[in-house]
Amino acid sequence: MGTLVTAANVEKIPGLNTLGVSLSRVDYAPGGLNPPHTHPRATEVVFVLDGTLDVGFITTANKLIAKTITKGEVFVFPRGLVHFQKNNGAAPAAVIAAFNSQLPGTQSIAVALFAATPPVPDYVLARAFQIGSKEVEKIKSRLAPGK
Amino acid sequence: MGTLVTAANVEKIPGLNTLGVSLSRVDYAPGGLNPPHTHPRATEVVFVLDGTLDVGFITTANKLIAKTITKGEVFVFPRGLVHFQKNNGAAPAAVIAAFNSQLPGTQSIAVALFAATPPVPDYVLARAFQIGSKEVEKIKSRLAPGK
Amino acid sequence: MGTLVTAANVEKIPGLNTLGVSLSRVDYAPGGLNPPHTHPRATEVVFVLDGTLDVGFITTANKLIAKTITKGEVFVFPRGLVHFQKNNGAAPAAVIAAFNSQLPGTQSIAVALFAATPPVPDYVLARAFQIGSKEVEKIKSRLAPGK
Amino acid sequence: MGTLVTAANVEKIPGLNTLGVSLSRVDYAPGGLNPPHTHPRATEVVFVLDGTLDVGFITTANKLIAKTITKGEVFVFPRGLVHFQKNNGAAPAAVIAAFNSQLPGTQSIAVALFAATPPVPDYVLARAFQIGSKEVEKIKSRLAPGK
Amino acid sequence: MGTLVTAANVEKIPGLNTLGVSLSRVDYAPGGLNPPHTHPRATEVVFVLDGTLDVGFITTANKLIAKTITKGEVFVFPRGLVHFQKNNGAAPAAVIAAFNSQLPGTQSIAVALFAATPPVPDYVLARAFQIGSKEVEKIKSRLAPGK
Amino acid sequence: MGTLVTAANVEKIPGLNTLGVSLSRVDYAPGGLNPPHTHPRATEVVFVLDGTLDVGFITTANKLIAKTITKGEVFVFPRGLVHFQKNNGAAPAAVIAAFNSQLPGTQSIAVALFAATPPVPDYVLARAFQIGSKEVEKIKSRLAPGK
Repeated sequence: MGTLVTAANVEKIPGLNTLGVSLSRVDYAPGGLNPPHTHPRATEVVFVLDGTLDVGFITTANKLIAKTITKGEVFVFPRGLVHFQKNNGAAPAAVIAAFNSQLPGTQSIAVALFAATPPVPDYVLARAFQIGSKEVEKIKSRLAPGK
Repeated sequence: MGTLVTAANVEKIPGLNTLGVSLSRVDYAPGGLNPPHTHPRATEVVFVLDGTLDVGFITTANKLIAKTITKGEVFVFPRGLVHFQKNNGAAPAAVIAAFNSQLPGTQSIAVALFAATPPVPDYVLARAFQIGSKEVEKIKSRLAPGK
Repeated sequence: MGTLVTAANVEKIPGLNTLGVSLSRVDYAPGGLNPPHTHPRATEVVFVLDGTLDVGFITTANKLIAKTITKGEVFVFPRGLVHFQKNNGAAPAAVIAAFNSQLPGTQSIAVALFAATPPVPDYVLARAFQIGSKEVEKIKSRLAPGK
Repeated sequence: MGTLVTAANVEKIPGLNTLGVSLSRVDYAPGGLNPPHTHPRATEVVFVLDGTLDVGFITTANKLIAKTITKGEVFVFPRGLVHFQKNNGAAPAAVIAAFNSQLPGTQSIAVALFAATPPVPDYVLARAFQIGSKEVEKIKSRLAPGK
Repeated sequence: MGTLVTAANVEKIPGLNTLGVSLSRVDYAPGGLNPPHTHPRATEVVFVLDGTLDVGFITTANKLIAKTITKGEVFVFPRGLVHFQKNNGAAPAAVIAAFNSQLPGTQSIAVALFAATPPVPDYVLARAFQIGSKEVEKIKSRLAPGK
Repeated sequence: MGTLVTAANVEKIPGLNTLGVSLSRVDYAPGGLNPPHTHPRATEVVFVLDGTLDVGFITTANKLIAKTITKGEVFVFPRGLVHFQKNNGAAPAAVIAAFNSQLPGTQSIAVALFAATPPVPDYVLARAFQIGSKEVEKIKSRLAPGK
């Protein structure tokens, strides 16, 4: 997807234990996408190091809060809400992300739904996304681990 | 989807304010699905009142933890993780769900991604799910509010 | 007392560890009483599954907040306050109780005071309840373990 | 009961707001009793300023943890558990009590049960303490406000 | 400095574990100073047992909040802020201090800066306090452990 | 001191309210010092954007934990402990700092002690730092607001 996440959490830095904070660096190639995901245990604040990003999160009232942010700007993704970042520029982009958890966790939505092990049953996904099971299988094959 | 959620949270019961707990009743028609969703601010424990349900959640290591639970059994969906319940039986089913938040919030994943207002850009969804923008538009039209 | 509590807490379900929530089912025979008790580490929300119950808790300003609740209704017992439920109906009753602790604990007041091991000194109880030590001993003998 | 509590909580000292700590001084006449009570929102640590006290609390496993403590000693009453202090000496006694809440609350058990307004129904108390309703009424009259 | 702190925290009283509260007794000789220090993990409330103390803390807006307190009075030092107490009287003084942590920690500022092991570099201290490195060395020698 | 802190906390970004996280950018001129200070309400994690910094914090056991960190490296300053950063290089340096509080607060130690309003009494500082009151006055004049 053109996005590389380098995490500095308690798994990498044992000294963070009990301290309730961590951070990550995320690098985006031109056109790179950090696809819709959640952090189940933390709010995230990002600071743009380089480039320009289209970012957004969706509220529990199903409203998209989106913005284009550029070098030196910050944006907040409240705890547990689905969000994404996209580098629509021609140059690489990068952010530092701060989390109020020493192990915020990440759940990439499409991969969680279509590439979990064992798989989520087709009928759950077909019904949720209002697609046929053939389409479900197609998405599953494209998102399968190793692809 | 054949699922009805009746919430008893702080919006309905002001006396829950500051108390950090709430519950919901969920009723499932035969075949009813509570499609993949998250509660951004709470862990959920369900107790089956009636019927039989296929339930599951996906961990941040992308592992599906699934089980069939029946009347009198309980199951836990840890804070912020994507989960679902499906009534595969011929009879109605129902659960009571307990949350450790007075306002856990719910984010229904497919609807958040494909039916938010304003909409999540097609290119984000096409790339995340590895589908064409035509398919994105088809899903959006099927999940649009009012449908 | 005609009341049976079936707890689903972290002692029964190890997966609740660190998740801060649990629940119980309580069944009441006709006339059954869940006598005055506290949960030292949690607020409780009950949902009536069947029957009708007289419920109440006492505030730190010594005010009784009481209500008769019936099938489908909910009621809240704030953290740490003395409360009780009584089935005054002719039919069995049952509730599901949600707690914002994985191990809320229960302290049944009369039993804690009059049947602890070793026993609470008679003079403490006589003075607190303004009764004679003979009456204290009588209550102790009636509430003794095994009775 | 021969006991005087002087609280320094957020109701007396507004500057404690949001700080999560408070204290009290408790003075005991010779023979004075601080009858069984709970603090629904805090653990308490006492330091004996003067005299000697018999203190105890009851666990959720119905075990009495009791000790005689004297000037300069400390004792802990875990959050929400029923506890008491009794000055069995001939001289006055006093403690400073620390709480990890700016408003720990106090629920004096006998008074809560037998002197709440409106009253807790007789049948609840009779059954809980295994006494007759005549005895319940007698205790109620002795603990009534103003007595 | 004429000040003696006797702590009752979880290192001394293992039963405080998980309970989030502790206390200390502090005794001050006439003229005794408890020099500027912080408790990194707790707010402190003091109750004066004997004598008169000049106490103060400095806010993050660099305002000194100071007061003279005497026997029976209380004062609050909010979490993490630099504070001190000084016995300006001719008689000994003493306080009981309550903390909302089972292990609040203490960092004595001058000693932390000028007597840590290994030492804080001279140029850091010279610049921070706007003094020469000769003066830094002089302070270091006077505050060295064992002095 | 050659250091510029740009904070992105809840005072600047109201949307951080209740979310418990914030960040800052700190820029250091060659030789710039961020003098010893504390954040009373947060742990801090820094990520070096540019340059090389000598950083350290002092534990409550009076041990200095120090390290030289360079571009791309991270370091943790636990909640409430005195810490500092110094750019010993010839080029500018910069970090992003993450905090697990929406308003961590900052207390610059030398300025808090020697330039508070109203001033901390000379005798407190003279005794704490083992210097004469003439030296105290000299430091006060050099650190006075506006200097």
